[in-house]
Amino acid sequence: MPAPKEFLDFVDSNADAFIQRLSEAVLIKSVSGDPTYRDEVIKMSNWINQQLQAVGVQTHLADLGRHTMDGQDLPLPPAVLGRIGNDPNKKTVLVYGHFDVQPALVSDGWNTDPFKLTILPNGQLVGRGSSDDKGPVLGWLNVLQYHHQTKTPLPVNLRCCFEGMEESGSEGLDDLVKKESQPGGWFDGVDCVCISDNYWLNTRTPVLTYGLRGLSYYKINVEGPARDLHSGVFGRMVHEPMTDLIRVMGTLVDVNGKILIPGVDEMVAGADVEERQLYEKLDYSIKDVEDSIGAATALSDDKVEVLMGRMRMPSLSLHGIEGAFYGAGAKTVIPAKACTPQSPESVLPLVKAHIESEFKKLGTKNKLHLEELHGGTPWVTDINHWNFKAAKIATKAIYNQEPDMTREGGSIPVTLTFAEALGVSVLLLPMGRGDDGAHSTNEKLDRSNYIQGTKLLGTYLYEVSVAQ
Amino acid sequence: MPAPKEFLDFVDSNADAFIQRLSEAVLIKSVSGDPTYRDEVIKMSNWINQQLQAVGVQTHLADLGRHTMDGQDLPLPPAVLGRIGNDPNKKTVLVYGHFDVQPALVSDGWNTDPFKLTILPNGQLVGRGSSDDKGPVLGWLNVLQYHHQTKTPLPVNLRCCFEGMEESGSEGLDDLVKKESQPGGWFDGVDCVCISDNYWLNTRTPVLTYGLRGLSYYKINVEGPARDLHSGVFGRMVHEPMTDLIRVMGTLVDVNGKILIPGVDEMVAGADVEERQLYEKLDYSIKDVEDSIGAATALSDDKVEVLMGRMRMPSLSLHGIEGAFYGAGAKTVIPAKACTPQSPESVLPLVKAHIESEFKKLGTKNKLHLEELHGGTPWVTDINHWNFKAAKIATKAIYNQEPDMTREGGSIPVTLTFAEALGVSVLLLPMGRGDDGAHSTNEKLDRSNYIQGTKLLGTYLYEVSVAQ
Ligand SMILES: [Zn+2]
Ligand SMILES: [Zn+2]
Ligand SMILES: [Zn+2]
Ligand SMILES: [Zn+2]
Repeated sequence: MPAPKEFLDFVDSNADAFIQRLSEAVLIKSVSGDPTYRDEVIKMSNWINQQLQAVGVQTHLADLGRHTMDGQDLPLPPAVLGRIGNDPNKKTVLVYGHFDVQPALVSDGWNTDPFKLTILPNGQLVGRGSSDDKGPVLGWLNVLQYHHQTKTPLPVNLRCCFEGMEESGSEGLDDLVKKESQPGGWFDGVDCVCISDNYWLNTRTPVLTYGLRGLSYYKINVEGPARDLHSGVFGRMVHEPMTDLIRVMGTLVDVNGKILIPGVDEMVAGADVEERQLYEKLDYSIKDVEDSIGAATALSDDKVEVLMGRMRMPSLSLHGIEGAFYGAGAKTVIPAKACTPQSPESVLPLVKAHIESEFKKLGTKNKLHLEELHGGTPWVTDINHWNFKAAKIATKAIYNQEPDMTREGGSIPVTLTFAEALGVSVLLLPMGRGDDGAHSTNEKLDRSNYIQGTKLLGTYLYEVSVAQ
Repeated sequence: MPAPKEFLDFVDSNADAFIQRLSEAVLIKSVSGDPTYRDEVIKMSNWINQQLQAVGVQTHLADLGRHTMDGQDLPLPPAVLGRIGNDPNKKTVLVYGHFDVQPALVSDGWNTDPFKLTILPNGQLVGRGSSDDKGPVLGWLNVLQYHHQTKTPLPVNLRCCFEGMEESGSEGLDDLVKKESQPGGWFDGVDCVCISDNYWLNTRTPVLTYGLRGLSYYKINVEGPARDLHSGVFGRMVHEPMTDLIRVMGTLVDVNGKILIPGVDEMVAGADVEERQLYEKLDYSIKDVEDSIGAATALSDDKVEVLMGRMRMPSLSLHGIEGAFYGAGAKTVIPAKACTPQSPESVLPLVKAHIESEFKKLGTKNKLHLEELHGGTPWVTDINHWNFKAAKIATKAIYNQEPDMTREGGSIPVTLTFAEALGVSVLLLPMGRGDDGAHSTNEKLDRSNYIQGTKLLGTYLYEVSVAQ
């Protein structure tokens, strides 16, 4: 069922007001990862809460308790739960978004004040959180405003879950989601979930996302001397921890991204001709990668290989190496992305066996400790579910384009939480483009993505209401 | 010629006053590497200047100009030059020391205030700079005080060069030494040099040092993407700079300290039986290494191998690796110690050829840049020179022990500057023990090393006066 023409017209004629509201949201420095901004994140919870109430949503500020960050005991910003409609003849859709943002300082290289939304002549709305994830959250508000203002009933029962700790590990959210998914909870009766918090592959073609990689962090610590040593004195007298660590790290991944830990790549079956065709179809080129990284360093000239590397293969990166000059020890934290059917539990023994065996081969007298810091399971869902069908029809209606069906290289752990707690289809329906620069300097959301994206979210609700 | 018994008695009966003077010196926070302490370093120049004048030395505060540190334009602390005696029938001895210190904070793990000299019951004088290098500098002052107070002429003409930037690269000193070594300069006519700024091998046996390793820093920079990439998105899509860098670093040195760059270890000829005997004779054991590092991670169980690794072989350490999570580039600065006959100039082409060839083998699309940051030439001198003979006799007189003849694993670049500018024998005559912890927390100088060391420096001057 298409959205009413009045809705689409309303969005167009209120575009400037919607952008104005996005400015207000960007102005609140809701950086969840920095304790000095915690008040601003809480202010943002309240702002979202008021905005939802103003468009007729029944809300609840869900207290998530306190936590420790940088040695400080801090209140967690409350999650904002919303409910509108309770018609047993309608489907119930849960939408998720987050209103916290990554840190941003002009000195990082922003061309403008990151917390002042700047409208560029080319239509880009530049500001921290414009695309990740205040824009999409406000997209839902815009949809609700039409229905409230014109007294048009929503085609579905809607539930909202907006949080303020996503950029800092969604602290406290898992428990809340599990609790509210119980009978009588805020999410009881939800038929499907829609999350708008990722991006198109490129700058041209809308996307529906049906998979995410999992994430594990492995901490390797090589212990040697009991204290840091005087520079120069001990070179070539003792086994240096850093030398050992670099040696072990060199056995983990090759320069082409292939994981050298026996069994890890092998857990993921190769793609057959049919699966390769899925990637062939995607609107993507090597030039897109090169443009987005600003260098000609893609791992392959074959777009299918590059896309499969991101979407259906595990990856392992080397980084975060710490160790003083002739230091007492050396350590690193290695982030590894996993793909279905891998789980943190199934990969860990392979990683452990490999690292310990490689370290043993070195014949050093230092000691190695391996620790898995935390893990997230990869996720893939059925693209033939009515939730996806509805989103596909809605996308065609708004963009006049077939959406690309993608899997993300990154992780959005809450996706799996919803899927598991509710047992329903979860759809990732991004609003922004691949070059938005979430987490980077000069983050932007294109005006057309914000406005057309608002139409898309609304239209999706209409299509869901009749989908089967 | 032995030192007069009155001198030795004077040192013993003035020991407490000498320690009191060391307290005063430690109290001045002359940290040269931190711009906020620059005034204290300059204060220290003036304090040394006054102390020298008080014991009859003609002095000169040598202006070294200004420099930039951490983006700040700062005055360099003046070097203090001293001159006493001009008798053409006496030898002229130049003594060098430095009065600046390494940074120190209680929070680094000091048991006491680092800038308040604490006398422990076991006789240790704990404080920053006690051993490196205020103690030895004050040793010379103590010697001079005896001669001034008792109106005893020195057995030699003495020249002093005390600087305040040693811990920060001896900025400005090279030019000063070269200038003052010219005819008419402060160091004109110098017959030998004595530097007291290193340590015994152990805690038992005094040492004369006749060699130092050189030092080169190689900066490797792997350039990839034009900007940092969104975490997770680009894993296994692009060549990651850090992966490439770790691979290259893994080809430089093995876990046993052997340098894998072809030709580098080979430049240093193997030790014959006779040379091995020099190391056999040294009072050192594997337990000494293990005690000083607090772990059983020595590279060998053979003390000769371990000592030769430190004293006559080059070494290369991996450290200082920087690169963001999916960063635009990755870099490291690699310190390498060289031994005679290696020079920075002769080693660089080998390093460059090896790194470039290993990087090429990787087949990555990223780019590598290698840069040599600065280099210091290794130094070895003749242990049969009268300068060393005098020091050996003096050591036996004071410690009743044959000194160990050592080469240092580290660098004291000013050694080479003096050797080249003056063309005379340079002797390193340490005051402190191997466990003093220079540059570390809880730096100390043993009371007996300070007091006997003062006697040693004085006695050395008497032995030099007659040596041939
Ligand atoms: Zn987000
Ligand atoms: Zn984000
Ligand atoms: Zn020193
Ligand atoms: Zn030092």
